[in-house]
Amino acid sequence: MASSEKKLSIFALGGVGEIGKNMYVVQYADDIIVIDCGSKFPDVELPGIDIIVPDISYLIENRNKVKALVITHGHEDHIGGLPYILKQLNMPVYASKLTMGLIEGKLKEHGLLGSTERVLIHADSVLKFGTIVASFFKTNHSIPDSLGVVLDTPEGAVVHTGDFKFDQTPVNGQYADLHRMSDIGKKGVLALLSESTNAERPGFTPSEKSVGVNLEDVFRTARQRVIVSTFASNVHRLQQVIEAGIASNRKLVVIGRSMVNMITIASELGYLNIPDGMLIEPNEVNKYAADRIVILCTGSQGEPMSALTRMARSNHKQVEILPGDTVIISATPIPGNERNIGRTVDELFRLGAHVIYGSGTLTGMHVSGHASQEELKLMINLMRPKFFIPIHGEYRMLRQHSTLAQAVGVDPANIFIVDNGEVVEIQNGAARKRGKVPAGNTLIDGLGIGDVGNIVLRDRKHLSQDGILIVVVSISKQEGKILSGPDIISRGFVYVRESEGLLDDASRIVSNTINKLTHENENQWSTIKSNVKDALGRFLYERTRRKPMILPIIMEV
Amino acid sequence: MASSEKKLSIFALGGVGEIGKNMYVVQYADDIIVIDCGSKFPDVELPGIDIIVPDISYLIENRNKVKALVITHGHEDHIGGLPYILKQLNMPVYASKLTMGLIEGKLKEHGLLGSTERVLIHADSVLKFGTIVASFFKTNHSIPDSLGVVLDTPEGAVVHTGDFKFDQTPVNGQYADLHRMSDIGKKGVLALLSESTNAERPGFTPSEKSVGVNLEDVFRTARQRVIVSTFASNVHRLQQVIEAGIASNRKLVVIGRSMVNMITIASELGYLNIPDGMLIEPNEVNKYAADRIVILCTGSQGEPMSALTRMARSNHKQVEILPGDTVIISATPIPGNERNIGRTVDELFRLGAHVIYGSGTLTGMHVSGHASQEELKLMINLMRPKFFIPIHGEYRMLRQHSTLAQAVGVDPANIFIVDNGEVVEIQNGAARKRGKVPAGNTLIDGLGIGDVGNIVLRDRKHLSQDGILIVVVSISKQEGKILSGPDIISRGFVYVRESEGLLDDASRIVSNTINKLTHENENQWSTIKSNVKDALGRFLYERTRRKPMILPIIMEV
Repeated sequence: MASSEKKLSIFALGGVGEIGKNMYVVQYADDIIVIDCGSKFPDVELPGIDIIVPDISYLIENRNKVKALVITHGHEDHIGGLPYILKQLNMPVYASKLTMGLIEGKLKEHGLLGSTERVLIHADSVLKFGTIVASFFKTNHSIPDSLGVVLDTPEGAVVHTGDFKFDQTPVNGQYADLHRMSDIGKKGVLALLSESTNAERPGFTPSEKSVGVNLEDVFRTARQRVIVSTFASNVHRLQQVIEAGIASNRKLVVIGRSMVNMITIASELGYLNIPDGMLIEPNEVNKYAADRIVILCTGSQGEPMSALTRMARSNHKQVEILPGDTVIISATPIPGNERNIGRTVDELFRLGAHVIYGSGTLTGMHVSGHASQEELKLMINLMRPKFFIPIHGEYRMLRQHSTLAQAVGVDPANIFIVDNGEVVEIQNGAARKRGKVPAGNTLIDGLGIGDVGNIVLRDRKHLSQDGILIVVVSISKQEGKILSGPDIISRGFVYVRESEGLLDDASRIVSNTINKLTHENENQWSTIKSNVKDALGRFLYERTRRKPMILPIIMEV
Repeated sequence: MASSEKKLSIFALGGVGEIGKNMYVVQYADDIIVIDCGSKFPDVELPGIDIIVPDISYLIENRNKVKALVITHGHEDHIGGLPYILKQLNMPVYASKLTMGLIEGKLKEHGLLGSTERVLIHADSVLKFGTIVASFFKTNHSIPDSLGVVLDTPEGAVVHTGDFKFDQTPVNGQYADLHRMSDIGKKGVLALLSESTNAERPGFTPSEKSVGVNLEDVFRTARQRVIVSTFASNVHRLQQVIEAGIASNRKLVVIGRSMVNMITIASELGYLNIPDGMLIEPNEVNKYAADRIVILCTGSQGEPMSALTRMARSNHKQVEILPGDTVIISATPIPGNERNIGRTVDELFRLGAHVIYGSGTLTGMHVSGHASQEELKLMINLMRPKFFIPIHGEYRMLRQHSTLAQAVGVDPANIFIVDNGEVVEIQNGAARKRGKVPAGNTLIDGLGIGDVGNIVLRDRKHLSQDGILIVVVSISKQEGKILSGPDIISRGFVYVRESEGLLDDASRIVSNTINKLTHENENQWSTIKSNVKDALGRFLYERTRRKPMILPIIMEV
């Protein structure tokens, strides 16, 4: 891509064909704007990996052109990559107040606060980055201060929705700016990038306020303590828990590091309103009658180290679940977390709690922060884009979103479903796919950024399935015979004490293999090692139908 | 438990507090009847394990009292444990025709057909096992020939529902025997063991027939091939696919080992009706127009080696997905499988197929085989038991089932929610929990039954997270100094070529540690080893924040 040409390029470095790790790039000539910098969690295919962030080789290669990193909102799949990405490439970060508050917490933790240029923006900001002018519009989402982004380029306007829903009765009066969206659409949108998280879901997503009504009902009728577990970042939800607590005359206790952190930041920045005297310390909980207490905590996804999980397992230092407590899991299980959540619910029931859990649609205790099909169509109708690029979702969601766009009249030839790195190029009003820039997963393991590759992962998977056998033997070089060993050390294969017979036989196989080879005057260690590996592998598979990793260590003396 | 006493004992060896691995025991004096012998699949906590079956120590200890192993139906969570359990304890197996057909396939595979006594039963069988008389009743479930079990004991009747739903319009006229259930209830039921799989689900489970209507609609309107993926064991579903194929004049192709196997057995035994000439071989598929073909295959849960997954990845030998094909996933994702199913759906879309996927409730392409809340209440009302033991479910499901039982009038004091192994003892009409028999998971790994224990699993988990470092060093005994090494071998930790600096530093740490100790005349190998482990572990954690397993191999020469 000869980037100095006068043309517009749009591509994702993360976020299409996947959920999470969002990063989108809009480039006109020598001006690059990056939108979002997310992370995602690894699945079972990536054992030992802590977190995944986008591969930003393209940005590093074009570092002089990168004018801004604009963040749409403060969720991890939009800001979680920052500490790791900024260590590789220093970019000025643009974000709204709450989003920036959360970002600064991250940067501080990683010692990057001083070195990172931060620019606070709001819905009315207008910024000029070379040939590109950026402006914004307010949206509804499950975290306050979420913005959509408009990038006016010489080729036309590119709109990125960020994450959104249309909530007609938002909490705290945080209305989406329908009028500005309408104006943007009237002025003309060249390309719309719209999020596809709920593109498979028919209808409208219910208002966040519907949850508040249900919370208040439960709070009023609960005769003892109420414990609410939800996503810390859902500030509107937290506010509604506080309101329900006020209505039922309860004191508020906050448990869990990320919850305490969020409540502190959101209160300081004015996004959360807790009446004076309502918040008490966890150790004060027993000073109040059970029906005067609401506990707000982390753990709605059954995370093993979270507050709710610890309480459920009766090993939380400060709070004990008591018979008669009402526990509300104010979240819908994210696929993959059902087992951990189920285990937490089981333990809570065993402790005598009344538990409200399961799909938010059934319990009324959770609504999504993402637009359903009718809202996605509404967004497209408001923006009336010439070109449409569904983003933010697995391939099937992008496909469903494409179907929705066609249903409201977007020309199928003008819809681009892309993979990460795949470039949509627009010049003189015509768009086409043109090549790919490098894109992929950068794996974070401990302090290492991208140092765990396929071989290491393959080994980890192999080790986790059948363990490892280490065969240690020393051989006299002159005499060509075994001096000591073979000693066989097993980790994760069989427990030695219970498998002595097997390991004795294995040891004999190794001796025989080596003796045979040395008799034949074979003295290439690599040949001896590979023969030992093969013979032992065959023997073990025959006897156990398992294939441990085999590591021969042959020392010559 | 002094078992020769004249009292009734009821307990689970598997199936309560979990989904799967069902095995229930009813004992009166010296007569033991075992109901079901299931398996379940391991979760991520049990790396490398193939399958889990019940621990049957109690049965082995009381082998002379075991009169019969009665199987309610042919699903894996009821028959999957048979090959492994029968190797430990030979028991006569009682099952209905289709169930026995499936069992015999398993026994043949494991060379157990000759040594296992098999007794064919049907809904009208009455069998006497010492003091216990067994009879049966027909139920509806997602596999034909499902039975509930009545065990008449001197203390009273124990009823085990097996898996069931009440389907008012069953496929093939396989009606549940409401009248017999009614008679059993009228005669009086001492204890009801009823399944709890859907105890969290309100309402009634829809009829299997509702799926058939939707299948026919799609088959009629599909202009090209239709590919249906479902559970092989759901014979009613298979029949409905065949009916829809007949209605739209399509030839039938069957793909996938378990699907071919099931269709063969079910056809032979008369549970499936395929018109002559409808079934064709996979290699004949291209002889027919695309709208004359229906393909029935495995893979509805995105299983990596299944037919549908292979087709989606374009590496199935016989069938290629073509643009315009309609793929119906006639199943609801089982929690934990969403990711694999999602990936399959993505690939199918990429190949140009039209895919009908997701929750059966939304697509109309799947209904559950298990009773929802209203049906569970109906069963309790039919049986009117004195004592109620919810079975077959996680703890929260058992709790919900208990709530349902209370709602229809069962005395809460007469409801027993038990853990595996926990014994409910009934004597002179009074029931109480009394102690536990051994119960737990027997882990199958390859050919090993129960030889993988906690230490091996802990090591596998550790290895999968951060890999292993093996430190090899030889030391001169006389001179007390390092002769060769330390050599560091890494597997699953870091890739050596990219981490030479780190491993060089690690090697130096090891040398320094050993030299220091030998200078201090420390010559206990165990002390040297543990010092090397500690020093190296600290160093690596400091540098990488990872904690690989460290295995020092110190050879003295």
